[in-house]
Amino acid sequence: MSQRPVPPRGMRDLLPSEVVLRRHLLGRIVEVYERYGFLQIETPLLEEIDRLLGSEGGENEKLIYKVLRRGIETWPPATEGEAVDLGLRYDLTVPLARYFASHSADLPVPFKALQTGPVFRAERPQKGRYRQFTQCDIDVLGDASAMAEIELVCATSEALAACGLDGITVRMNHRGVLDGMVSAAGYDADRKAAVLITIDKIDKIGLDGVRTELRALGDPGPADRLADMLAASIEAEGSAATLAALPATVDEVAVADLETIRVAVREALPWVEVAFDASLVRGMGYYTGPIFELAHDESSGSLGGGGRYDRMVGKLSGQDVPAVGMSIGFERLCHVLEGRARDWDRRDRIVFLHDAMAPAGEVVRQANALRGGGAVVRREVAVKNRRGQLARAAAAGCSHWAEYRAGEEPVVQALDEENEEGTR
Amino acid sequence: MSQRPVPPRGMRDLLPSEVVLRRHLLGRIVEVYERYGFLQIETPLLEEIDRLLGSEGGENEKLIYKVLRRGIETWPPATEGEAVDLGLRYDLTVPLARYFASHSADLPVPFKALQTGPVFRAERPQKGRYRQFTQCDIDVLGDASAMAEIELVCATSEALAACGLDGITVRMNHRGVLDGMVSAAGYDADRKAAVLITIDKIDKIGLDGVRTELRALGDPGPADRLADMLAASIEAEGSAATLAALPATVDEVAVADLETIRVAVREALPWVEVAFDASLVRGMGYYTGPIFELAHDESSGSLGGGGRYDRMVGKLSGQDVPAVGMSIGFERLCHVLEGRARDWDRRDRIVFLHDAMAPAGEVVRQANALRGGGAVVRREVAVKNRRGQLARAAAAGCSHWAEYRAGEEPVVQALDEENEEGTR
Repeated sequence: MSQRPVPPRGMRDLLPSEVVLRRHLLGRIVEVYERYGFLQIETPLLEEIDRLLGSEGGENEKLIYKVLRRGIETWPPATEGEAVDLGLRYDLTVPLARYFASHSADLPVPFKALQTGPVFRAERPQKGRYRQFTQCDIDVLGDASAMAEIELVCATSEALAACGLDGITVRMNHRGVLDGMVSAAGYDADRKAAVLITIDKIDKIGLDGVRTELRALGDPGPADRLADMLAASIEAEGSAATLAALPATVDEVAVADLETIRVAVREALPWVEVAFDASLVRGMGYYTGPIFELAHDESSGSLGGGGRYDRMVGKLSGQDVPAVGMSIGFERLCHVLEGRARDWDRRDRIVFLHDAMAPAGEVVRQANALRGGGAVVRREVAVKNRRGQLARAAAAGCSHWAEYRAGEEPVVQALDEENEEGTR
Repeated sequence: MSQRPVPPRGMRDLLPSEVVLRRHLLGRIVEVYERYGFLQIETPLLEEIDRLLGSEGGENEKLIYKVLRRGIETWPPATEGEAVDLGLRYDLTVPLARYFASHSADLPVPFKALQTGPVFRAERPQKGRYRQFTQCDIDVLGDASAMAEIELVCATSEALAACGLDGITVRMNHRGVLDGMVSAAGYDADRKAAVLITIDKIDKIGLDGVRTELRALGDPGPADRLADMLAASIEAEGSAATLAALPATVDEVAVADLETIRVAVREALPWVEVAFDASLVRGMGYYTGPIFELAHDESSGSLGGGGRYDRMVGKLSGQDVPAVGMSIGFERLCHVLEGRARDWDRRDRIVFLHDAMAPAGEVVRQANALRGGGAVVRREVAVKNRRGQLARAAAAGCSHWAEYRAGEEPVVQALDEENEEGTR
């Protein structure tokens, strides 16, 4: 146990001002998503470990917090498998797929799900990254049409705008387009996964870095052809020209889907930029169709992302269900908005002073009369240095003060004016 | 892994209607607590295992979900202590004490904390009890006066009333009164813990059962004297007469505190019953002063409880801080209110039908126009059997419907009227 009473490594406590901001933002997001017809669900934070480990979660599966089986009688258990039966969820998608497979008979079809809650990944701690963090997901299950993607992109863009971030840019790609480019470049199917992992590093190592790593994978011919295609896409800056310039082997339906999404989002929400980006991969192995990332000038990293995963639910239920989801990077969103002026909570905040000897019931009754109008009232025993006490209250966010007087109703005064007078 | 994709044993998924109820109730509770000046905080769901195991949590410590240390290189670890470093929290009080010890410099004093969130106990699964459940706590740290208890009792009673349960009864006792009764009966100090555990079973086994078990502990003299005192208290039904009849060895300050609390709560909130109950113990070892339970006619078990624990923070910070807390039994509250009529969400819910071939951007734009007024809009591709589709929408909670027509703004109609006409 660490000497100082701090949270576990890589985790953190939230101060009241942080909770106010987060609750405000979550409230805005949920409100927009609900207007789009998404229904909020909740799943337990623990899932069976075998389910988590068999879910194509890629690197995230290595980061699972594993929970010891209860009632182990003789220590040590022979294997880790005997010792562990549960794990903390590392995302909200695996639990959603399980949830839908379990409850689909009780849910409308298509099912539009909204989930917010903590997830856990035992990553190496670094600035701004936490081992417990909040995710905020919407998913459409049972709709194979591009309309599902269009609603997800529009709803998420509007949710971010409701938090104060308009001017969203949506980068999009399609697993079918990626597959087509990779095979047009001359790669065999069994090299695809390694090639995609390399392309995915482009934000960190740049196009030249990707070209170098692709060459290191083997034959330079496919490496250069693929890097040239990526370069042409970057050159075209996401315009329709990029889509037209794709090699003929690329799935035409995939290209048409992306164009349908781009046109519809621009028409519904003209303030959203939608750009094709051939270098967008997203890590998860389970994506099968369009993939997305949402960016904003004020954030260096993406503020959200998602894509279509048509085969995951089928693995659990035995019946394929088309599915597509979008996740807001809630921690990053909070980080971007933390610096802004605090007008999240506009209620009056009154500090109500009373003598320690005043009759308690009457003090609470008077304080409650002030609360009746919706104000927040913090009761405090008055100290001698009233100027100091009111200054501390103002620093803690109080806007007004009042004082208990026997037999009189309290008079509320703004803290600014009275901070001076109160010391007379 | 179980064959059906169900949650882990003793845990559960929440359907959308359940989430709506829970969110509504939590919102009401938080709103009342905030008006009382409580500030919301959050702590991680994991704590260091040694901290959880050394916190006087009584039976709850045996129910901790333990988390395997990451990066164990050679299996098996020699001991469980080597294998485990973290645990899931089993209540919100231990994390609060750690939080306060860590952050008190950044917090107002006294600090009035509000916490809601999941806690975990690996109890034997049974009806209405879950291994992950929500707690909803308020605590006052740094106030040794009875005013802290009075505010906790008043705020919690008002929070329950805001959820629709007025007519709250508060049962209260005091660890000082219990200690005094136990020693007045003739028990040695080292028998106290066992005696209190026995008294605590009175709700399950009745007074006669308690008398029998006390006798089984040893000498029948103290057992009968203590059982007689409890009988007298029950006879007096919580009135002031009970307090007057307490043996002279009982701490007078404790008795005076209880009377102060009773009088003040009745004065501030005349609709709250406050009754002394000499048989109230509450399990936790860490209580040091007044203890409470909140009851309501519509619930067989208590809807909340708490008490003063003046020494827990000091164990972590090295400096004693007076502390008192109250917890709402949120799951039980939900259970009581589940049966009531669903008017939690009063927004219009519109199902918006469109042809699968309609231009997607224009469909979303029209749906958004409907959403602009605050309505919830669920977009659906129209099917041939419109009567069936609208009936399903009504069953899923929709109040209105509308239809996409190119070049026209949609007309919203109530579902009742149109459910018939729509099939013509």
